[in-house]
Amino acid sequence: MGSLHVEDLDNISKCTVENPLDPEEFRRQGHMMIDFLADYYRDIEKYPVRSQVEPGYLRKEIPDSAPYNPESIETILEDVHKQIIPGITHWQSPNYFAYFPSSGSVAGFLGEMLSTGFNVVGFNWMSSPAATELESIVMDWLGKMLKLPKSFLFSGNGGGVLQGTTCEAILCTLTAARDRMLNKIGRENICKLVVYGSDQTHCALQKAAQIAGIHPNNFRAVPTTKANDYGLSASALRSTILEDIEAGLVPLFLCATVGTTSSTAVDPIGPLCKVASDYSIWVHVDAAYAGSACICPEFRHFIDGVENADSFSLNAHKWFFTTLDCCCLWVKEPSALIKALSTNPEYLRNKATESHQVVDYKDWQIALSRRFRAMKLWLVLRSYGVANLRNFLRSHVKMAKNFEGFIALDKRFEIVVPRTFAMVCFRLLPPRSPLIIKTNGYQNGNGVYHKDESRANELNRRLLESINASGSAYMTHSMVGGVYMIRFAVGASLTEERHVILAWKVVQEHADAVLATF
Amino acid sequence: MGSLHVEDLDNISKCTVENPLDPEEFRRQGHMMIDFLADYYRDIEKYPVRSQVEPGYLRKEIPDSAPYNPESIETILEDVHKQIIPGITHWQSPNYFAYFPSSGSVAGFLGEMLSTGFNVVGFNWMSSPAATELESIVMDWLGKMLKLPKSFLFSGNGGGVLQGTTCEAILCTLTAARDRMLNKIGRENICKLVVYGSDQTHCALQKAAQIAGIHPNNFRAVPTTKANDYGLSASALRSTILEDIEAGLVPLFLCATVGTTSSTAVDPIGPLCKVASDYSIWVHVDAAYAGSACICPEFRHFIDGVENADSFSLNAHKWFFTTLDCCCLWVKEPSALIKALSTNPEYLRNKATESHQVVDYKDWQIALSRRFRAMKLWLVLRSYGVANLRNFLRSHVKMAKNFEGFIALDKRFEIVVPRTFAMVCFRLLPPRSPLIIKTNGYQNGNGVYHKDESRANELNRRLLESINASGSAYMTHSMVGGVYMIRFAVGASLTEERHVILAWKVVQEHADAVLATF
Repeated sequence: MGSLHVEDLDNISKCTVENPLDPEEFRRQGHMMIDFLADYYRDIEKYPVRSQVEPGYLRKEIPDSAPYNPESIETILEDVHKQIIPGITHWQSPNYFAYFPSSGSVAGFLGEMLSTGFNVVGFNWMSSPAATELESIVMDWLGKMLKLPKSFLFSGNGGGVLQGTTCEAILCTLTAARDRMLNKIGRENICKLVVYGSDQTHCALQKAAQIAGIHPNNFRAVPTTKANDYGLSASALRSTILEDIEAGLVPLFLCATVGTTSSTAVDPIGPLCKVASDYSIWVHVDAAYAGSACICPEFRHFIDGVENADSFSLNAHKWFFTTLDCCCLWVKEPSALIKALSTNPEYLRNKATESHQVVDYKDWQIALSRRFRAMKLWLVLRSYGVANLRNFLRSHVKMAKNFEGFIALDKRFEIVVPRTFAMVCFRLLPPRSPLIIKTNGYQNGNGVYHKDESRANELNRRLLESINASGSAYMTHSMVGGVYMIRFAVGASLTEERHVILAWKVVQEHADAVLATF
Repeated sequence: MGSLHVEDLDNISKCTVENPLDPEEFRRQGHMMIDFLADYYRDIEKYPVRSQVEPGYLRKEIPDSAPYNPESIETILEDVHKQIIPGITHWQSPNYFAYFPSSGSVAGFLGEMLSTGFNVVGFNWMSSPAATELESIVMDWLGKMLKLPKSFLFSGNGGGVLQGTTCEAILCTLTAARDRMLNKIGRENICKLVVYGSDQTHCALQKAAQIAGIHPNNFRAVPTTKANDYGLSASALRSTILEDIEAGLVPLFLCATVGTTSSTAVDPIGPLCKVASDYSIWVHVDAAYAGSACICPEFRHFIDGVENADSFSLNAHKWFFTTLDCCCLWVKEPSALIKALSTNPEYLRNKATESHQVVDYKDWQIALSRRFRAMKLWLVLRSYGVANLRNFLRSHVKMAKNFEGFIALDKRFEIVVPRTFAMVCFRLLPPRSPLIIKTNGYQNGNGVYHKDESRANELNRRLLESINASGSAYMTHSMVGGVYMIRFAVGASLTEERHVILAWKVVQEHADAVLATF
């Protein structure tokens, strides 16, 4: 470990260095890393799921400048064990039920290896034809599995593209919608454009609107209600739009969600598209989490009406086994994206582009450079096949259903919103008063546990922190309609029935402990 | 390979499926893939560098829907060989000299494996503390290696973040600059904001301006000249700014480049920052390619003056061995980024964030989700150490210098712009007239080869296509000052001296052939 001062004298290279991509060294270290990770997955249950470190832990363990001389992979892997793993929250743990899953798999990992191994920069067709062509093909494959209308596929007049995240997908489609509109009404009207979502829409929409220069006052988070299961109501949307038009504003873009982050609520795509079409609003359907489930016929109806939307996206890295990042976006009118996002510098000119026979994905996204993400989606689709993919998803849904069943049997708890996919939103109900607890202990009758919301919220905050601090399982929270609830999302690839049973026991034990001092 | 119709009946799962992340299956297939890739690197020279396929080749070889049943990894790898590799342009080939390098290495690959293996979604500190903390630490490490002023480091009051690409880095900083300005002058003035670059600035700036809602008329590509080696002149910038102010517009953002894509020109950072500061313009320094070289003391002067810029970025995936994607961005005022890019939904609330003791990188970038990219940068820095990293870069520069030397010895060619880093811009000069060629053949005197620009451009277009079609080496072109030139960028990790010598022979042979029919 050297300092950065002495070696400034070394501006003539002193030694012959090994090639940094030597094939045999790649083989040796690569095998070592595979074993390291296979062991990690085998032993993953021994780590606390949520990292238990305190802010700043790593600066105390790591030198404050880069080493001057090389260090061996053996040393580095030891440090990964000692310094990094304690600071990891184990998203791949079978006891991970937080946020949404970050869905790993052998096939996804191998696809990422191929993509990193070839390390091509697929900005246009020319730069590596296979990267572009495979992407177009697998996006059609997945589109067909979802029974998307042909207008979203290359085999129709639309097409699909792999983005990194939904944030990017929304920003790209919003920019396309914005420019299409401004080309009609004049650029100087940008401050009049209005973007719509519900109060349950992912923050990606707000962020995309901020970046695209939409006036912050023109972002509408239309309130939802328990009566609609926190879905966006078409009539509420229409009233909001009418008010905006009345105020001289220009409705632009609606993001409808299938499977909201807080509670997996589903906005009614069909009715919302109908309203939107009356005002020429671009509709993007964000099915980041729940879209994957729609490859199963029994879930497909949740995206009924998508044929009237302009764009549709889902995150294959959430619940479709590709590892982060892999957001699948389909659009009906690729030319709208291309008009908004293309640039054509001389150094990228080539015959294939000029022949107009190819797709240049650089014009479908924010960045110029892009990884060969189609590889991992292709490997996932082929390694598991449609049949197994459906089975994986169904097994997660079934496990969530079982967990829901456990809750129903323990009257201290309630399901806050109905379960739709593989996530259960529940909470512990507070006892009526400390006196009753002390004298009678817990009773399972509804009389004892009631809905004093602020006490309930505090109780569940404590319960969740108690569970997570134990390291035995990890869940996160959300709040809908003023109710703090615990989200239990099944979907980590290693999770089996027994982990769900264990998690429920953990919840019960911590409920006992928390109630005892509440 | 099934169709998508029959199996719609199968909405009850029929078979118990294997776990998609089974550790021993991971181990088995992982080792297989390491050997596949090690063999690929060993044999890479047998493939044509630029893919030779025609548009649409892959649709002919691949079924038009996803398989219903799983396929084995052995079958898939066979198809990678037969169907994918022919469509790959081999960016990792030692005979690859196109665009800029996409710099792979064993350490970068291993870092990517760890990142993909842990598969954490590091949107905030809480979601995986190690991901955030390691990123802050390695960004300080690399910042120190570059001798960036302390104001760009976390150990000062600034900080670094890993973005995917320079396009994202520019969009984020531009958005931050935009909102800082609009908060002063009012949102309704967005159409008055002006963005500056030169006619050599990467198209990332134009794209970022488009996305951020800058009026298309307010994008300035200030012309450069051969006299300034295609660097942006401070006085030209000032005149352009003054004209804009005169017209009632508001100067906002300057992107200065260290190592332009066309010719690795260097904009004079110091003088440009001085002009910019007179008008409170945010200066971003885009050192995507050449920034890496600045870890060598003999190259550091190219970023002198950076202390007066607002933000600085380089692509570690270009010439710093991390594999795609890894753009390092440092900013002096992280709060400007955070104000423009933050959102704080309930489902992400946590104690660490509320303690204000931690960095939440989601507020430093476009997307919410983010991969653990710091891992690969950490592995590269430790596996090679500062000493070897400098040596790698110097060896590329030396090879480019040798290539330049070969050109100087063959009077049929000329160097179009002076070489600064590891890229040589050259062209073949056309013979004076067909008659002279036919009767006298080629002569090496300057009298015979002259600069008829349009003929020269056509000649070099043919030469480049001839070289690339051969598959022996791959180079790309650019155009500066009306001159079409061939870019020879050394930097693929496998390239050795002998490949550069071979490439020069290839250039000479194809020049012979092309001149013979010109």
